[in-house]
Amino acid sequence: MNRRTQGAEEQHLGSMEPIAWDRISYTINGKRQFLISGEFHYFRVPARDWRERLERFREAGGNCVATYIPWILHEPAEGDIRFGDKPERDLERFLALCGELGLYVICRPGPYQYSEMKYCGLPPWLIDGYPDILARTIDGHIMVRDSVSYLHPVFLAKVKAWFNIVCPIIAAYATSKGGPVAFVQFDNELTGIHEWFGGWDYHPETMGFGREEGRYTAFLRNKYRTVERLNAAYGTAVSVLADMRPISSAAMTSIGDRRRVKDYQDFYFGTIAEYAVLLTGWMRESGIDGDFIHNSANPGSNGYHAETVERLGSGFILGSDHYYNLDLDWNANNPTPKYAVNALLSHEMLRHYGFPSTIYELPGGSPSDWPPITADDLSCCYWTNIAFGMKGFNYYVFAGGYNPEGIGGDGEVYDYQAAIAPDNAIRPHYYAQKRFGALLQEHSWLVEAERAVDFYIGLDREHSRSSYYAAGHRPFGNADAWTFLSKGLLMTSLCASYSPELLDLYSDNAVNAAGKPILVAASACMAANVQQRLVNAVKRGGKLLLAPVIPQLDENFNPCTILKDFLDGAEAEPFTASEREVRVGSIPQVYVNQGLWVSAKLPEGASVIAEEKKSGGIAGWKKRYPNGGCVIWLGIQWKFTKYGHMDMLRELLNELGGDAPAVRCDNPNLWTALRSDGSSRMLFVMNLFASPMEADVSLRLSDGQYAEPIRCCLKPMEVQTLLIDDNGAAHDVRFGRDEAAPIRSFEEREA
Amino acid sequence: MNRRTQGAEEQHLGSMEPIAWDRISYTINGKRQFLISGEFHYFRVPARDWRERLERFREAGGNCVATYIPWILHEPAEGDIRFGDKPERDLERFLALCGELGLYVICRPGPYQYSEMKYCGLPPWLIDGYPDILARTIDGHIMVRDSVSYLHPVFLAKVKAWFNIVCPIIAAYATSKGGPVAFVQFDNELTGIHEWFGGWDYHPETMGFGREEGRYTAFLRNKYRTVERLNAAYGTAVSVLADMRPISSAAMTSIGDRRRVKDYQDFYFGTIAEYAVLLTGWMRESGIDGDFIHNSANPGSNGYHAETVERLGSGFILGSDHYYNLDLDWNANNPTPKYAVNALLSHEMLRHYGFPSTIYELPGGSPSDWPPITADDLSCCYWTNIAFGMKGFNYYVFAGGYNPEGIGGDGEVYDYQAAIAPDNAIRPHYYAQKRFGALLQEHSWLVEAERAVDFYIGLDREHSRSSYYAAGHRPFGNADAWTFLSKGLLMTSLCASYSPELLDLYSDNAVNAAGKPILVAASACMAANVQQRLVNAVKRGGKLLLAPVIPQLDENFNPCTILKDFLDGAEAEPFTASEREVRVGSIPQVYVNQGLWVSAKLPEGASVIAEEKKSGGIAGWKKRYPNGGCVIWLGIQWKFTKYGHMDMLRELLNELGGDAPAVRCDNPNLWTALRSDGSSRMLFVMNLFASPMEADVSLRLSDGQYAEPIRCCLKPMEVQTLLIDDNGAAHDVRFGRDEAAPIRSFEEREA
Repeated sequence: MNRRTQGAEEQHLGSMEPIAWDRISYTINGKRQFLISGEFHYFRVPARDWRERLERFREAGGNCVATYIPWILHEPAEGDIRFGDKPERDLERFLALCGELGLYVICRPGPYQYSEMKYCGLPPWLIDGYPDILARTIDGHIMVRDSVSYLHPVFLAKVKAWFNIVCPIIAAYATSKGGPVAFVQFDNELTGIHEWFGGWDYHPETMGFGREEGRYTAFLRNKYRTVERLNAAYGTAVSVLADMRPISSAAMTSIGDRRRVKDYQDFYFGTIAEYAVLLTGWMRESGIDGDFIHNSANPGSNGYHAETVERLGSGFILGSDHYYNLDLDWNANNPTPKYAVNALLSHEMLRHYGFPSTIYELPGGSPSDWPPITADDLSCCYWTNIAFGMKGFNYYVFAGGYNPEGIGGDGEVYDYQAAIAPDNAIRPHYYAQKRFGALLQEHSWLVEAERAVDFYIGLDREHSRSSYYAAGHRPFGNADAWTFLSKGLLMTSLCASYSPELLDLYSDNAVNAAGKPILVAASACMAANVQQRLVNAVKRGGKLLLAPVIPQLDENFNPCTILKDFLDGAEAEPFTASEREVRVGSIPQVYVNQGLWVSAKLPEGASVIAEEKKSGGIAGWKKRYPNGGCVIWLGIQWKFTKYGHMDMLRELLNELGGDAPAVRCDNPNLWTALRSDGSSRMLFVMNLFASPMEADVSLRLSDGQYAEPIRCCLKPMEVQTLLIDDNGAAHDVRFGRDEAAPIRSFEEREA
Repeated sequence: MNRRTQGAEEQHLGSMEPIAWDRISYTINGKRQFLISGEFHYFRVPARDWRERLERFREAGGNCVATYIPWILHEPAEGDIRFGDKPERDLERFLALCGELGLYVICRPGPYQYSEMKYCGLPPWLIDGYPDILARTIDGHIMVRDSVSYLHPVFLAKVKAWFNIVCPIIAAYATSKGGPVAFVQFDNELTGIHEWFGGWDYHPETMGFGREEGRYTAFLRNKYRTVERLNAAYGTAVSVLADMRPISSAAMTSIGDRRRVKDYQDFYFGTIAEYAVLLTGWMRESGIDGDFIHNSANPGSNGYHAETVERLGSGFILGSDHYYNLDLDWNANNPTPKYAVNALLSHEMLRHYGFPSTIYELPGGSPSDWPPITADDLSCCYWTNIAFGMKGFNYYVFAGGYNPEGIGGDGEVYDYQAAIAPDNAIRPHYYAQKRFGALLQEHSWLVEAERAVDFYIGLDREHSRSSYYAAGHRPFGNADAWTFLSKGLLMTSLCASYSPELLDLYSDNAVNAAGKPILVAASACMAANVQQRLVNAVKRGGKLLLAPVIPQLDENFNPCTILKDFLDGAEAEPFTASEREVRVGSIPQVYVNQGLWVSAKLPEGASVIAEEKKSGGIAGWKKRYPNGGCVIWLGIQWKFTKYGHMDMLRELLNELGGDAPAVRCDNPNLWTALRSDGSSRMLFVMNLFASPMEADVSLRLSDGQYAEPIRCCLKPMEVQTLLIDDNGAAHDVRFGRDEAAPIRSFEEREA
């Protein structure tokens, strides 16, 4: 049982304390703890089952539940507000019960819900009665009937009215009043409803095209001041700012076009932030005094919310949703190395923002009955996320149920392959979650444990949002850099049993504190302050690997050569001959499966470390700086397909003076993470494949030697957790999943 | 040891007999047998290792090897022909050795090889010296330096010269002369080199744009006769046929445009056939008298070669390549249900063409060192292909090696994660292949065994090649029908433990012989003869399910209402209201996750079997015909995500009077196939997931009852094979893979 909730039966509304948080973790009742939440829909789970299921969740280690509060359900006709008239609309009874049971609550009152509801949880009267609120494609077409233009004045007025009703109810149960409501989420997976159905929203009224006082015009004015400067930037000839219109990424033919597309995206993300400011403002006005949260739709979209994070400031946590399969259109049925890399990137980016990385939708099942979500796959997913930095999570969903009439998008039953089925059957998932919860509680020190770091990989979050404007940008654009980061640097590092940490290139503090080599997947464009930060780091003695190009532009594609100037004007030129054979250090031939660049000129005092042998072209050089600083430039972009890439990485790190890895694993298919809080250490060994795997794993001791290897034999989809003592020996070996319990049907009950 | 090759040491060139084949199997030495081949590159495997490795392959059950004969290697400079000057160019010695060892040989002399070679195996002097031969995009750009325009006269002249050299060498070792060369492959994965790099080839000279006697003009003249009819079909206004130009699929805005795009594709596939006719003709002229083969690039592209199959007629076998992972850009690292469905479709389409379904590249590894190809995954892949109809295969590659200088596209070592590593190390894959070979030989009756059939699913192979011209075609185009076939009908059937057979809708004989219900994923377009064939089938007493639309056009998008007229003019109209709730038979609500169509009119005497409840619209009806015929029309397109889809399918089959399934399996995640030759029966149970699975499986006996269930417990990625006796009991249970041998490294040797 959760220590914190021991004696919960004696608790009453009035005794729960706010949850604190920082970038390390949540703090609950004065103790750093994982936030262990389960999505639990009071409107779907029959009210008679609430208590039993909530108690079950608490027994599985849960300390929080989350629920949508569907607008479609509580305002079935405009102005017809219903709370408490039916059990499925009795939000207050549910909140009171959670408080009684000592479970915190995350409320998600929308306006959007998604959640397999009709119109994603918006009321039909809204969509049908006010069709002008629907979002538009760049051609002016309505996307789908589910997609609203967030800032449309009619939509905003209706949302405000809904918030005026629902938020005071929530506020009455806030932790500030001793109630259970710890966090309130505004909207749901913002931008998703546009991106998935046509790109960004281009609603002319919302965006104010053609109007001097319009939002888009204001954005352009703020950025460019005058129409002359705007025309110069875009290569256009409009006569006033208000005449400017966005273009589609398919229509880009020049750098100016690219600026225009990127600017519109920045502008659009700014409207998301404006929307978030409005929603949270209304919530505050309605008495909600706790912190807000929001969930980005997937690991790749955390970067979309940079503007929102900045505008909302403190009192807000951005988290992410991390699914691996939602239906048969997903190509992998289980977690994979690619899933794990995306999860790692997401946790690290959330940490950079300053948050305790939280997965607000961690799979508890799937909206589809098939393909199956299995307990083994879930365990693998859960432990992999912990290994890579997850500090809080919410199983989506913990308990299935039944859709009240009129809200279900796919039938009456909302099963979701959940741990607890609609009919209360307990599925194997439950025991996987219970085991997971028990270990997280037994080892709650893990929540403040840090992952061992062998070196840093720079993260420029703009790269993660560059796919539309940077596609095809040559030489070497942001989107390519993002691919190189994940499929090249990260995959190679993890297979080579290194533990890289992602370094926030936007943070002086982070870059200043980096005491180990920094690897940067550079594009042709890098913001001036990032360039300067890297130069400063090297001047202070930092070690930098820059690949595959040397930036010459800033983030607006204007000339910016801070880094290049520091490197004596070195440039990377694309190597286009089809015959190529590249030596890197002592490795006679490295497989270059993506781009290759060469440098016509060697910086003063630099030595060649890589060459294209047929042409003699310089494909990499190394230069030492005073104070021990060092820069390696390598003109190779690769995706990890050949073991030689691991050898190359090791050689480059040796050249930079990096340490031997904290963990050595002799099987590239098993990835490791070592987390320590200074006194305890836990080693995670992950098998993200469908075949059994084994390896010898050994840890670097304080004297620099390696401990006796630990033999690890893993089943498919198994994550092992091993407590490591000071001698590097595995003391208390835990297995990430139950002994192979074959999946027979989903109707098994507790034995 | 392979019975056939017992005493192989005594064999000499001069004793091998041609291999016969029909749509059932290959016949080797008078006995129906699996063709068990391994790709073995004499130019990569060190000559000193040839014998040992070939013997190893024979010990693993092999009866054939395949090899490319690289043009790039044997003609390093134009006219500088080299055979036998170095061990890696000693093709004759290799062929003689294969003959000595009693191993048949498939020779693949190109011109294309791919095979991770520079320029895909074409000589650099060709590409560099004759750049006009390179294929062009529709905009006239060169695609990549690897892609040639097949029918370019300069290219053809060079190929002919190469064939004049290489083919006589091959011919001297043909089985007709007692030698080992059983088959010769022309080119490699035709069309791939265009499709992957820019779409079809639009080389103006090759295609003859603008010329009265040009190929494209001739195609148009043959199809439309006059420019007036052409203009009428395309909605264009060219003055002579030769003025017509193709348009891109992105530019389609009308039915006429769609005809123009589809016609160009048909024309392009016709040029592939013309190329195949030329290549095989030159081979014949050079003395090659055996049968030809070709490998389509993947399961989805068998349909691309319909014209080639027709033009070449007898003496030719089309097979396919069936990989599941080639590098980290593939999302699944192991076989999946989706892989299995594609494999099933491929085997069935090859059978329809009249071939013993052969996978000329069945994964033996991967060109990438990572992600790992494991022995368990390979076993799963192999057995799944056998379950679904594979009659011959070629491990690509069986043995790794080293690239001779100048030919390797990715370095000197050609490892391919093969069963035998370049340094002769034996990998776990080898033992998986050995076990597989042993079982195939022990149960060689399997090669003529047929899969139990519960009902038929119509296959219109045009649908498989419709993605470019049919995208977005409403109402309901061929590409949607193809998706519905695989993700709807097939996935649902296999999960519901049915055994569907794909029915060749282009064959009168096949449709006439179908004694069980026929399910047809219909698009708005269906060729007149297919429509008539289905009408005739129903008139003769056949049972037909037509979903989701009733065709009104032929394959050229001209009106064609043979089927509609037979169904009393019934039409399917798209149901567009967003609120929908569909009952099918006794199932109160079926999840319609894709399109829904309703019928305003009920055919005379038909009864409603499905309705949209909110509107009362007819979503399905059933009509009986004399002689016991029956038609059900169902206006639902679905992809399988909800178990309710299985219930719906069962209900529809019951309505059609279908039999109970031959095999019952109570776990939808385990798929089964029962193969019988009339006396022996083998049941395949497949776990295509990363978690263990179990099920009770029982077989329908001759009296219609079900046998005692067999309990099957499967590891991840396991395929079980069970010999079944007349009482439906499992007699001899074999497991599809070795006892979990964890993958440690790839350097294990035989214990």
